[in-house]
Amino acid sequence: MKHFISIQDAPDLDALIAKAMLYKENPNIDREKGKYKTLGLLFFNSSLRTRLSTEIAANNLGMQVIGFSNQQAWNFEFMEGAVMDQQNAEHIKEAAGVLSRYVDILGVRSFPELVDRAWDYSEPVLSGFQKNLTIPLVNLESATLHPLQSLADLMTIRELQQTKKPKVVLSWAPHPRALPQSVPNSFASCMLAAGMDLTITHPEGLELSSDFTEGATITHNQQEAFEGADFIYAKNWSSFREYGKGTSLYSDWIIDGKKMKATNDAHFMHCLPVRRNVVVADEVLDSPKSVVLQQAQNRIFTAQAVLASLLDHGK
Amino acid sequence: MKHFISIQDAPDLDALIAKAMLYKENPNIDREKGKYKTLGLLFFNSSLRTRLSTEIAANNLGMQVIGFSNQQAWNFEFMEGAVMDQQNAEHIKEAAGVLSRYVDILGVRSFPELVDRAWDYSEPVLSGFQKNLTIPLVNLESATLHPLQSLADLMTIRELQQTKKPKVVLSWAPHPRALPQSVPNSFASCMLAAGMDLTITHPEGLELSSDFTEGATITHNQQEAFEGADFIYAKNWSSFREYGKGTSLYSDWIIDGKKMKATNDAHFMHCLPVRRNVVVADEVLDSPKSVVLQQAQNRIFTAQAVLASLLDHGK
Amino acid sequence: MKHFISIQDAPDLDALIAKAMLYKENPNIDREKGKYKTLGLLFFNSSLRTRLSTEIAANNLGMQVIGFSNQQAWNFEFMEGAVMDQQNAEHIKEAAGVLSRYVDILGVRSFPELVDRAWDYSEPVLSGFQKNLTIPLVNLESATLHPLQSLADLMTIRELQQTKKPKVVLSWAPHPRALPQSVPNSFASCMLAAGMDLTITHPEGLELSSDFTEGATITHNQQEAFEGADFIYAKNWSSFREYGKGTSLYSDWIIDGKKMKATNDAHFMHCLPVRRNVVVADEVLDSPKSVVLQQAQNRIFTAQAVLASLLDHGK
Repeated sequence: MKHFISIQDAPDLDALIAKAMLYKENPNIDREKGKYKTLGLLFFNSSLRTRLSTEIAANNLGMQVIGFSNQQAWNFEFMEGAVMDQQNAEHIKEAAGVLSRYVDILGVRSFPELVDRAWDYSEPVLSGFQKNLTIPLVNLESATLHPLQSLADLMTIRELQQTKKPKVVLSWAPHPRALPQSVPNSFASCMLAAGMDLTITHPEGLELSSDFTEGATITHNQQEAFEGADFIYAKNWSSFREYGKGTSLYSDWIIDGKKMKATNDAHFMHCLPVRRNVVVADEVLDSPKSVVLQQAQNRIFTAQAVLASLLDHGK
Repeated sequence: MKHFISIQDAPDLDALIAKAMLYKENPNIDREKGKYKTLGLLFFNSSLRTRLSTEIAANNLGMQVIGFSNQQAWNFEFMEGAVMDQQNAEHIKEAAGVLSRYVDILGVRSFPELVDRAWDYSEPVLSGFQKNLTIPLVNLESATLHPLQSLADLMTIRELQQTKKPKVVLSWAPHPRALPQSVPNSFASCMLAAGMDLTITHPEGLELSSDFTEGATITHNQQEAFEGADFIYAKNWSSFREYGKGTSLYSDWIIDGKKMKATNDAHFMHCLPVRRNVVVADEVLDSPKSVVLQQAQNRIFTAQAVLASLLDHGK
Repeated sequence: MKHFISIQDAPDLDALIAKAMLYKENPNIDREKGKYKTLGLLFFNSSLRTRLSTEIAANNLGMQVIGFSNQQAWNFEFMEGAVMDQQNAEHIKEAAGVLSRYVDILGVRSFPELVDRAWDYSEPVLSGFQKNLTIPLVNLESATLHPLQSLADLMTIRELQQTKKPKVVLSWAPHPRALPQSVPNSFASCMLAAGMDLTITHPEGLELSSDFTEGATITHNQQEAFEGADFIYAKNWSSFREYGKGTSLYSDWIIDGKKMKATNDAHFMHCLPVRRNVVVADEVLDSPKSVVLQQAQNRIFTAQAVLASLLDHGK
């Protein structure tokens, strides 16, 4: 694997998950692989799980890690041919060129602005780095994708699934703020790539981009979607159609115990952080069927598998 | 030792100090103890000494360290049953659950708000973490306690004391801002636990909580307190009674050379940072009797002894 | 070498560059030199290249690195005898005293205020640290100097020069903001110390302090300066005479392809970050003669040579 920008960059999802499971058993078996190598982690946005899990994954491979934020540096310019007489102090060409000479792998987190759909979906920051780096790039959540999260989600389902093709339901859920589509985009395309029986349910008008959902069953009837589900994955997202628009409607889309009863004793999943009693009721999140912490833990080992694969490519 | 939240968590103070003294002589003798282990350091507030000394202590034990602040992530919710539709993005239950799976020991710094006494003294942040973590927790200074500082203070006194039961004086001192009671609370209870002859002196109305001072001599006469003292420990704190109230009165409570003359050639102590010529006169801080840098240095080795003890517990 | 505050601290520039070239070939040959040693990096200002290159340099020597900013701590007081009843929470005496006991080498970055020339040129922060530290100090760019940058610049020229005494031109260039004189000051004194044929060109009134330029040819005619040049080093700086004043005039001082044609097929240099199409035209920066990334890469190895020399001194 040369880069890890989207789930599609993984040449063999199941092999990657198998590697992650091996690391979960023996985190330190590849301590020599990243010896004297450095992972750079550049954050344009907040992070807790991604920062820590990726740093620990790198440490497990013997890598050194340098985390930094653009606030510790300055604003970057992404436009070709720009006359840089405004706020942006450094062009991505130089930034990426320099970072390529400083670190062995670069991770970048950069959220969408949720204003101009075409702009966000062009992935200006990630694609700017990808184009100008000569080292592997890891997506730590971009404007439209969060593939490291989806890998950990897939690993968790693989650990728990009792049938060959479990019914996985991605359910929209309420949230006080307008959130990106990154997690559901990557989750949907990962589930479909892994051959799951995927149902997506959301209020009318909150359709995701069909680029990611081809092959899924889509319904506006949450109750119907939950019937017989083996996994319920809750997530808020803002509108793709009226781009970036949030909504205070549909608070009844919260995932509660009553809704979970319709499922096939489903596991409850969420990428975290989660708004308790808005997205999901305490009774569900605190139940034994909630696997959110297992998902979070698997972030370490899937990130480790990704980094190991990128290190191998460089050889 | 399972956690280190307060001085009372140490089963044997003198054994802990003895370990710290051993580490001071040979910082690297336990480089294998923390191998492949990670210390997480979460800062809700500013830090210089605590951040660096704890990180170096962990490195001396071979641990990896990931420091982060809540500003790099988001606000946490600490209330049970909260409907999280406001500013707080992640509940302590998930945060602590995830961190328990990511790091081997967690240190947390969280200052008081100094508004509601009952709230601060309930230690909402530290107790929220303690309740929800499955790994050891280290107090990097909480709303009401700073036990790592007090351990270093005790070690310094042990290194310098010439009699079995030296006279130790904790003196209130002026400060332009209203400060927490954490340092004096922990210092008083540590000195008393260690069998020191402790005198506390402060202007009338600035009594500390009696929970920490039982057994100390308390006087509003600073001059009388200093007589025959072997150690003068200066510290400002805000009012416990009129909770969180600071004062611009009592600027004559500054520790100066004339006052130090009344002592038994006492050592001058302060936890730092210290406001020169407000809390203490240059002539005292720059004198050979000032041991503030020795205290600061001992922060490394007492933290190392604490971390070693927490690592041992986990075995 | 005891400290590295200015280019003049290096007892033998060519030996230092030779060491850096050795490290470029074999970054890991001195992995034992800094074992169990810690480098502290204190940032009062933004940094990208300096932060990363110095951290990687230290890692290459087996050192541990703790980076922190004054915002993570508090404001420092630098005045002797200050009555600290205002904003500054800790005196440099204590800060430097403590850091001397915590880390083995300290790096400090602190930019000028560009208001009071005498104040900036007294280097209040760097000299405050130097005076109060008992460990080596490295200048990560101060109010008036940036010697780590100049070392990397010299190394780059040494790698590329075809004649014994190449013609090096330092050219002022336009910029939307008023910038420090640190880079040109150090560059000029480094080039002169290394025996280069140095020409400095800038609009009238933008003279640098003559303390750094003695021995250089100085001209206000940019075109004339470029004739026969082997290296063009572009950099904006604010006025030394009308101290700290920037200017929106002279936008025609931009380095473009036409101007480069007058040179002896010169290499283009800049310390980065650079404002594209303000300081320099894309056609120059993107040409094969641009060596800005080589300069940036050499930051690692020159910093490594400096740290190694400081570690050797301590023995």
